[in-house]
Amino acid sequence: MKIIVTAGGTRERIDAVRSITNGATGRLGSLIADELSHRISTQELTLYYLCGTGAAVPAAENIRIIRIEGTEDLQSKLETLLRTEQIDAVIHSMAVSDYKISSITTPEQIAESVAGKFAASKSPVSQEKLRSIVESALSEEAIDANRKISSQLEHPVLVLQKTKKIIEMIKKESPQTVLVGFKLLSGVSESQLIDTAYRLLVKNKCDFVLANDTDSIKDGNHEGFLIDAGASMIKLEGKEAIAKGIADCVLKKLLENVK
Amino acid sequence: MKIIVTAGGTRERIDAVRSITNGATGRLGSLIADELSHRISTQELTLYYLCGTGAAVPAAENIRIIRIEGTEDLQSKLETLLRTEQIDAVIHSMAVSDYKISSITTPEQIAESVAGKFAASKSPVSQEKLRSIVESALSEEAIDANRKISSQLEHPVLVLQKTKKIIEMIKKESPQTVLVGFKLLSGVSESQLIDTAYRLLVKNKCDFVLANDTDSIKDGNHEGFLIDAGASMIKLEGKEAIAKGIADCVLKKLLENVK
Repeated sequence: MKIIVTAGGTRERIDAVRSITNGATGRLGSLIADELSHRISTQELTLYYLCGTGAAVPAAENIRIIRIEGTEDLQSKLETLLRTEQIDAVIHSMAVSDYKISSITTPEQIAESVAGKFAASKSPVSQEKLRSIVESALSEEAIDANRKISSQLEHPVLVLQKTKKIIEMIKKESPQTVLVGFKLLSGVSESQLIDTAYRLLVKNKCDFVLANDTDSIKDGNHEGFLIDAGASMIKLEGKEAIAKGIADCVLKKLLENVK
Repeated sequence: MKIIVTAGGTRERIDAVRSITNGATGRLGSLIADELSHRISTQELTLYYLCGTGAAVPAAENIRIIRIEGTEDLQSKLETLLRTEQIDAVIHSMAVSDYKISSITTPEQIAESVAGKFAASKSPVSQEKLRSIVESALSEEAIDANRKISSQLEHPVLVLQKTKKIIEMIKKESPQTVLVGFKLLSGVSESQLIDTAYRLLVKNKCDFVLANDTDSIKDGNHEGFLIDAGASMIKLEGKEAIAKGIADCVLKKLLENVK
């Protein structure tokens, strides 16, 4: 049996030293990997653990740990595994950055670019036109991100762009793989959380989604709702219980598939 | 003897889950703390180790570890120590974020604000005026950073602002404290690196500054130049040698001060 657990968080580079990170510690992912290791014998299980650079790693032995930098790195390593091996399940707990850096600029540079384009325009500038001028000015690269941004700048401006949704790719590459997705929101109602998580499940053909809210992850506590494709749901309290609940569901599903 | 070592990196919050971090691991700082612990007896030394949330910690015992989030957190904890105790030396190796988030907005929001202000202006808009309109539009908060920024946004725009220079405060609070500063640049010439580091030393009344370049910190190697107030300099290779070199200089300086 071959299972991939992703854990921790991606890191998107701003410049030579700075990055955008998320607070993901990898603890939940490491517990899931440990739980699976305890339930399946070493001979039968190949477990890949793809995790962020600073993430917690499982205590169990014989787990193949693969370190991940940014979203593109995760995509390429995951794709390679899915294309070269028959992966039975992916438990995708890694917090993948929704955004990477598109351009780095300054207020002065934006203003200069807007003023220049504005002056170059012959006819009176419509509001539509002004909008497109502003948007285009924002996309112009003013700072070389291969170097450390000088701390002399008063107000660096970071324009972000969306990264690829990694979860979308998993069932496309490997339709028979059991897939567990994760949805983290912040300060929403329980029904809004569950609705959003269920939409993620349907959209990406997940078998299960763990829905959680940053407000319910505090001081060692961690509350989650594990939702399945039939829209039934169990509430789990604590990272250990969540890890056990996910391992239960995945192994049951894999057993059903074999039958 | 009371010594403070700062290590690792600060973390500036973007929203409920995202942060801007720097790659600082805290390894060098932890080696400096260990080096000092080995040279001074436990009875004689009180060592405070102020470090980033994920930073390496010293192996030696009896070190008081204090975890730091952002730059403001570092400032307040450092100020408290300097005001309430007589600190003999501060070795400030922590990579402090030069920037924190000033506002989070979107291209659409900026364009709308610019267009609105532009339309409201009666007389023809000069280039000067246009610049001030753009700069003011950038400073308007469009996104609530207490929540997680929705991943639906196409191009979030992060406008940064400078944080306080922590190193400036140390000799002001405590003129008799021996101070070691650190200067990290990226891809500059050796003379430019040393010049910049020496200016940092003079400006902040450091006794020593360790100058290093990201290009010379790779694959476990770490090259640094330890500069003193007399502008003499030693080249050190490897984190262990840097830690030893700094401990040597600080203890020698403290001994001179006693005489």
